[in-house]
Amino acid sequence: MKRILTGDRTTGKLHLGHYVGSLQNRVKLQETYDTFIILADIQALTTHFESPEKVRQGIYDVAIDNLAAGLDPEKATLFQQSRVGAIAELTIFYSMLVTVNVLRHNPTIKTEAKQYGYDDLTYGFLGYPVSQTADITFCGADLVPVGEDQLPHIELTRKIVRRFNQLYGEQAGLVEPSPLLSETSRLVGLDGNSKMGKSLGNAIYLSDAADEVKAKVRAAVTDPARIMLKDIGHPEICTVARYHEVFNKGESEDIASRCRKAEIGCAACKNRLAEVLNQVLEPIRDRRAFYEARPEHVREIIETGTERAEKIGNETVRRVRDAMHLSL
Amino acid sequence: MKRILTGDRTTGKLHLGHYVGSLQNRVKLQETYDTFIILADIQALTTHFESPEKVRQGIYDVAIDNLAAGLDPEKATLFQQSRVGAIAELTIFYSMLVTVNVLRHNPTIKTEAKQYGYDDLTYGFLGYPVSQTADITFCGADLVPVGEDQLPHIELTRKIVRRFNQLYGEQAGLVEPSPLLSETSRLVGLDGNSKMGKSLGNAIYLSDAADEVKAKVRAAVTDPARIMLKDIGHPEICTVARYHEVFNKGESEDIASRCRKAEIGCAACKNRLAEVLNQVLEPIRDRRAFYEARPEHVREIIETGTERAEKIGNETVRRVRDAMHLSL
Repeated sequence: MKRILTGDRTTGKLHLGHYVGSLQNRVKLQETYDTFIILADIQALTTHFESPEKVRQGIYDVAIDNLAAGLDPEKATLFQQSRVGAIAELTIFYSMLVTVNVLRHNPTIKTEAKQYGYDDLTYGFLGYPVSQTADITFCGADLVPVGEDQLPHIELTRKIVRRFNQLYGEQAGLVEPSPLLSETSRLVGLDGNSKMGKSLGNAIYLSDAADEVKAKVRAAVTDPARIMLKDIGHPEICTVARYHEVFNKGESEDIASRCRKAEIGCAACKNRLAEVLNQVLEPIRDRRAFYEARPEHVREIIETGTERAEKIGNETVRRVRDAMHLSL
Repeated sequence: MKRILTGDRTTGKLHLGHYVGSLQNRVKLQETYDTFIILADIQALTTHFESPEKVRQGIYDVAIDNLAAGLDPEKATLFQQSRVGAIAELTIFYSMLVTVNVLRHNPTIKTEAKQYGYDDLTYGFLGYPVSQTADITFCGADLVPVGEDQLPHIELTRKIVRRFNQLYGEQAGLVEPSPLLSETSRLVGLDGNSKMGKSLGNAIYLSDAADEVKAKVRAAVTDPARIMLKDIGHPEICTVARYHEVFNKGESEDIASRCRKAEIGCAACKNRLAEVLNQVLEPIRDRRAFYEARPEHVREIIETGTERAEKIGNETVRRVRDAMHLSL
């Protein structure tokens, strides 16, 4: 069975954008791949080191969001990144194999660094692609589901693995991973912003109650030119239409054409979308209720997964050390 | 008993410059301090990642040099840096607390980076002061014996510890270390170069045989104006005179004044120095012979020390994780 490494930074609850972009896919992948879900608290700390309590809460939030979305702890291994010592040790070894310049010119680092300000770029933040290489290789993942923007990181991982094998030989058994590009593109925000994001305040969370979903959809940005029911609509510029396309494939064309003819109003269109979203979210809510009532069980799931990850990681570090002739 | 952290990069055998600059002092310090000797293979890899076999051999070389110099394994803890997972884990946590700019402007990094070329500066090399912070703090060292050039690193360690305590509280018990400046300044090379260095080919190794020492001293650079025995000498520009000052304090003034009056020739002066150096090196050779005949015993000394270091390190990481609220 091939192995997959995927996961989330533990900076807060997950939303529909995550669901569409990756969670939904993970649930399918766990049937045919040995699936490792990283609860990336170290990576969360690269931007949230000043609020570690948030990162800790995020570990539970993200774990429960994954389980609620349908990840089966019997099939998938959920683990806490910072607890796997092998990730830290491999990061240190790999840090000799990549130059500062390569990291500085990584397009994703560049974009993200701009958000936080270049001058305050921490050493840890600059190196997070090296840490990701350790995340992927400690468990020998063959595949890493990613969005387009993460492709440079996978490319760097492949480069580091090749460099390692070239320098120290292939007996460490490091696997050069392949990206698995997600089919669904980014979900737009409720405010029409091109991305749904925690920090943008335009997200529907997997943990939102049915009424909250209804209220948020009701406030979503539509065609600003359409004021009265009799005005014709322009679904091509309407956020709600985008959501119908993603979550309501069967009806979306029909709704769009009725909107263009002013046969359906925004209120009805939004009510229908809220209904559909709540249909998607209902089974997620049921599983969430189960796990939220059993925090100790969730902790055990993470503990068990982390122990498995630690074992595999220690084995990898042993092979890496042997290949590097560092064993006495 | 206060704790000291000191040690050597495992890139090769140690020489008289190391002896005078630190080893000699360590032997005294072990009587009054709990002395941790780091066999710094990770730091060695920052510059020698392309020749790990050399780094591995260096672990034994440096351990035996320390033991031969008089470090007592019953008193001092010799340990292999790369085996202490806590060092890697703390390095990762600390890497969030220091910016790339601070590291780039560190004067020691600047000087050293020039040697290797800025463009090829690896991420690991740039971060070695962060790794050193982990070396010092994982065992709660109170004091770190250093030369002037290492003072910026101790200052950075103190800054990181203060930043950690300020952000996460002091319950992790991280110790802000103090530098212990070595009294003896740098030993000049046999070629008159201001520094004795492995890479400069101007060193007398602690493992050199008596005849080798004699031959190397005979070839040492002296006053170039003094060609014949009857020419008066200028000890103030003579390498051999520097060595007499360091290793032959009792006679050095007398020899210098006789040199100025052409009452002693270079050959006799050098023979005397070789005698004195061999007196210093003789007990070191005896202990070396003991340990070199017992490689398994040396391995056990390192293993025992490393296990002690691992235990203390795991305890520190546990406290650090608790302070950061990362324990589930």
